[in-house]
Amino acid sequence: MTSNALNFSGGPGALPEVVLRQAHEAIVALPETGVSVLGMSHRSDWFHALLDEAERNLRTLLGVSDRYALIFLQGGSSLLFATIPMNFATRRHAPPAYVNSGYWSSRASAEAARVGTARVAWCGRDTGFRRLPALEQLALAPDAAYLHYVSNETVEGLQFDTPAAAPHDVPLVVDMSSDFLSRPLDTSRFSMIYAHAQKNLGPAGVTVALIDRALLERVPDSLPGILDFRTHVTHGSNYNTPPVFAIYVLTLVTRWLRDEIGGLAAMQRINDRKALRLYDTLDALGDAVAVHAEQPWRSRMNAAFTFGDARLDGAFAAAAAQRGIIGLDGHRSLGGLRASLYNAVTPGAVDTLCEALTEFAVAHA
Amino acid sequence: MTSNALNFSGGPGALPEVVLRQAHEAIVALPETGVSVLGMSHRSDWFHALLDEAERNLRTLLGVSDRYALIFLQGGSSLLFATIPMNFATRRHAPPAYVNSGYWSSRASAEAARVGTARVAWCGRDTGFRRLPALEQLALAPDAAYLHYVSNETVEGLQFDTPAAAPHDVPLVVDMSSDFLSRPLDTSRFSMIYAHAQKNLGPAGVTVALIDRALLERVPDSLPGILDFRTHVTHGSNYNTPPVFAIYVLTLVTRWLRDEIGGLAAMQRINDRKALRLYDTLDALGDAVAVHAEQPWRSRMNAAFTFGDARLDGAFAAAAAQRGIIGLDGHRSLGGLRASLYNAVTPGAVDTLCEALTEFAVAHA
Repeated sequence: MTSNALNFSGGPGALPEVVLRQAHEAIVALPETGVSVLGMSHRSDWFHALLDEAERNLRTLLGVSDRYALIFLQGGSSLLFATIPMNFATRRHAPPAYVNSGYWSSRASAEAARVGTARVAWCGRDTGFRRLPALEQLALAPDAAYLHYVSNETVEGLQFDTPAAAPHDVPLVVDMSSDFLSRPLDTSRFSMIYAHAQKNLGPAGVTVALIDRALLERVPDSLPGILDFRTHVTHGSNYNTPPVFAIYVLTLVTRWLRDEIGGLAAMQRINDRKALRLYDTLDALGDAVAVHAEQPWRSRMNAAFTFGDARLDGAFAAAAAQRGIIGLDGHRSLGGLRASLYNAVTPGAVDTLCEALTEFAVAHA
Repeated sequence: MTSNALNFSGGPGALPEVVLRQAHEAIVALPETGVSVLGMSHRSDWFHALLDEAERNLRTLLGVSDRYALIFLQGGSSLLFATIPMNFATRRHAPPAYVNSGYWSSRASAEAARVGTARVAWCGRDTGFRRLPALEQLALAPDAAYLHYVSNETVEGLQFDTPAAAPHDVPLVVDMSSDFLSRPLDTSRFSMIYAHAQKNLGPAGVTVALIDRALLERVPDSLPGILDFRTHVTHGSNYNTPPVFAIYVLTLVTRWLRDEIGGLAAMQRINDRKALRLYDTLDALGDAVAVHAEQPWRSRMNAAFTFGDARLDGAFAAAAAQRGIIGLDGHRSLGGLRASLYNAVTPGAVDTLCEALTEFAVAHA
């Protein structure tokens, strides 16, 4: 028997049960309109109000000032890997600097290098992507266009603390796809924050971006309209047909965070407890299991670990599946196992996982 | 009282009731996996099988040969307006030629002109976008990169017949967003066909593209990976996280077309009957109502019309709403009214609309 409640997938993954219930009803008829959410026009009053609410809820949860534009985009982080340098790496600046701390940040940096020139400010490949640098101490050109990093490496299970600032106050651009809304955030330290939905925000298909309006003044006038961030700001995220359903579910998730969880500080307390429970369990298993990330940089969102070989890892995934647990496969680039502890994964689900881990380790000791 | 069944929206709009019912169930648990469709990983066996089925169903419905790659993309037609010239308007060719026959084709052509150089092969703006040219007779450079047109102008309600070929056998690239899968199609006449989902295929958020593999050989190696069509072909539409739910609903729609409707020839017979019924009704109202498109070019998918002024049009939309009819607002660029007759709009719904039209005209004569 499988279950939504025991979904530890790296994403798309678990969503809160109350959100699934509301989405379920909305497929037949939205409470507000009586029409299926899938049939609602993006030019309807309902959708305009939804976009407004989604933006308002995100601004309130995070405490985002008007210094930032907030937009909803398609194409995921992968499209932003290309459009960020197109928009912000101008000839007036030194090339942007990239922190290659894992699979996803390395993809961002490789794409930026195709768009123009990108400097690698730090690379963890030779040490197996098991640790993170101190962002504040990286060697950067003072006029670098920006410093890009990924706040949580989903594949390797590494997570940065929020940095005070980049050296020389170079603008910080961060991909927060896998830990956005998982904890409070001082957004004022960043020039751009972006996150696709399919971890903590909703279903795949929509991406949130917060952009300092000062940075938008850099955008060259030569870009195609659809790739120019200003287009989406000017049109209030409704330039072309947005993914209506994904934005609807994202809005339900923001309501859940506000009303059921009680905000991001409360969410963080829950997430910290979940992560502590899982890592304590893994550590207690001693040599039977190896966590990929070194201790100080362990992610509260994703734990990548292995029982030592593919046969044992497969046996554990099968044993866990007997309890209804799903989504434990490691990323194809790393192998092994991965448990993702996104917002919608409950402490009870983590307890179930931990029991399965301990039982398996004892049986195979 | 509103109703999904009486949704005449220009899109997103009506979807088949059986598809809505299946999507409704899948939000709680997919029949195949027991897990919510919103929690399914894009790397799961289930999703790989779904992508395969979606492609197979589309190929079978349309009779698409292996000459074409078939991919699913994000970003809608608007992103393709930029990426098509990036991929296919090489320096070895004369600039691509664009047919500006309405609002959407003019947007495509304006975006191509931002990417590089684009020639306007025909423009209907001066005559109010009420008629269409003969594509076979346009004056084109023999070495034009391609000829782009929009097969159905959603805003103005104009529709091309499938052309035999472009002059000089210039590759034909067509945006079929609003009439794809509405009728059988000889795909072999085209070098590229694309269509976003939110008319006849499913919810907003996914776009289908058929591309002649010979055209892919033109793609320059300098493009960012995400904007290079070959990336999505190589990765089987799973390069970065695809919009899983939108592709799921699209697959349900292809099953409905195959199993409930009986294929595209049967779909065309139903669509032709619906359009005939509506235009006959509008024509019978004489001077009370004006259809925007001239007779030979009237679309079977969208009828744009007006009772003569905004007050009367608003009064009709309100009267229609009394019967549960929604989605009749004309596009903001044209005003007036618009009834969209996409695949999922039933003949019975069109009957209801026609009764409302006649009754209103009599009452306001």
